Amino acid sequence: MRCLRLTLSYDGTAYAGWQLQNEQPTLQGALERALLRLTGESIRVVASGRTDAGVHARGQVVSFRTASTLPAEVFVRALNDILPKDVAVLAAEDAPEDFHAIRAAKSKRYRYVLHDGRLPDVFLRRYAWHVWRRLDEATMARAAAPLRGRHDFSSFATLGSPRKTSVRTVSDLTVARLPPPDADVIHVEVEADGFLYNMVRSIVGTLVEVGRGARPEGFPAEALAACDRRAAGPTAPPQGLILMSVTYDH
Amino acid sequence: MRCLRLTLSYDGTAYAGWQLQNEQPTLQGALERALLRLTGESIRVVASGRTDAGVHARGQVVSFRTASTLPAEVFVRALNDILPKDVAVLAAEDAPEDFHAIRAAKSKRYRYVLHDGRLPDVFLRRYAWHVWRRLDEATMARAAAPLRGRHDFSSFATLGSPRKTSVRTVSDLTVARLPPPDADVIHVEVEADGFLYNMVRSIVGTLVEVGRGARPEGFPAEALAACDRRAAGPTAPPQGLILMSVTYDH
Repeated sequence: MRCLRLTLSYDGTAYAGWQLQNEQPTLQGALERALLRLTGESIRVVASGRTDAGVHARGQVVSFRTASTLPAEVFVRALNDILPKDVAVLAAEDAPEDFHAIRAAKSKRYRYVLHDGRLPDVFLRRYAWHVWRRLDEATMARAAAPLRGRHDFSSFATLGSPRKTSVRTVSDLTVARLPPPDADVIHVEVEADGFLYNMVRSIVGTLVEVGRGARPEGFPAEALAACDRRAAGPTAPPQGLILMSVTYDH
Repeated sequence: MRCLRLTLSYDGTAYAGWQLQNEQPTLQGALERALLRLTGESIRVVASGRTDAGVHARGQVVSFRTASTLPAEVFVRALNDILPKDVAVLAAEDAPEDFHAIRAAKSKRYRYVLHDGRLPDVFLRRYAWHVWRRLDEATMARAAAPLRGRHDFSSFATLGSPRKTSVRTVSDLTVARLPPPDADVIHVEVEADGFLYNMVRSIVGTLVEVGRGARPEGFPAEALAACDRRAAGPTAPPQGLILMSVTYDH
């Protein structure tokens, strides 16, 4: 059966997360409803990962099987007409019949947006964590460095689906303040071959403890070594998190 | 009686505009309710201008009289605690007793945000006008130049409160595409000593006709000379408009 792959962007504010739930608006539900309208088929979609309530995406990847013969590019236009305005299809392409958006994923990249302005920013309230104290982004960047590489990240995972292993390889982790006029915004970018539940948000919560001076620069490295969630900082709130992209082999 | 001046930022999406209305959420209503809670007084506020439904502000200025003896900086913190999260007080200061946010205003600056990406951007949908056709911003910038200066802008005013004169001085009017990664965004910035009703939105609607190739570069200048609203382009939608700042003499 034909397999299609979609790249999606969404503002997660109004949703109870990706995964289908009864009585709650979900992104999976919105997409499957739109696909039913377009194709007449009850299609089950698979996403590269299930983003939580309030989390956003600029490059979520979804796969599904369909009997439809509509050209892939028609899926982009037609779905964007049908979908709610906070969900957009950025690309659609035919994929190999055995393509699976979770199993084939080689790496994922997330951005976490921090705002440390002295005053609230109404335009960022849905898209950033407002930390009221000024953050020292240079110390945060140095503190983050030991988390790069292949490690057991169990200190940065909250309870979720059980995993065979909590070892992951973080190929990139950067902390950078934006230039003016956005100098009250810090981006934490993380790329890894996979993420444990709440891993980015736990890493960010830990780095913010360093950035606001509550913990020393060595805190994230010590937390990592402890292999104990209680050794790390709190979990950052969802609205600052964006799934940026998913990388596949082909 | 003491006079205070506030600088406000707001996301206008959820509001029926600035001005108080029965049964509808308004920005004036939200601020006056917060002031009642803070001071115990029924305070009537005056804004530099009444923004329409869906229009945003980064630098709206408001004045009001109060018997409160709270320091001005306490108004900032306390109002931000009380106000809904889509409204923020950026500054508060004592003003001369006869200060009036409308009458004392020397000039106002607006930004209009255009998005001409091939695909929808879910993060801009509340803050930009998505024009589906690629716009030629260089031609728009040249087409806008004749609108600078002192002119009768009646071609760019829709029906509103009657005015003594429709002559205004536009001291600045620029059209510029942002650098990557925001290259699908164009900012139109307009500063003037005063604005007729829907003036920025009519100017932008007219410039977009030029930018998408439906009208020649001379169209805005001809529309201006006609002194007839029917000679200009359509009124751009509200969500792209932001009141950036208001300038006062002192």
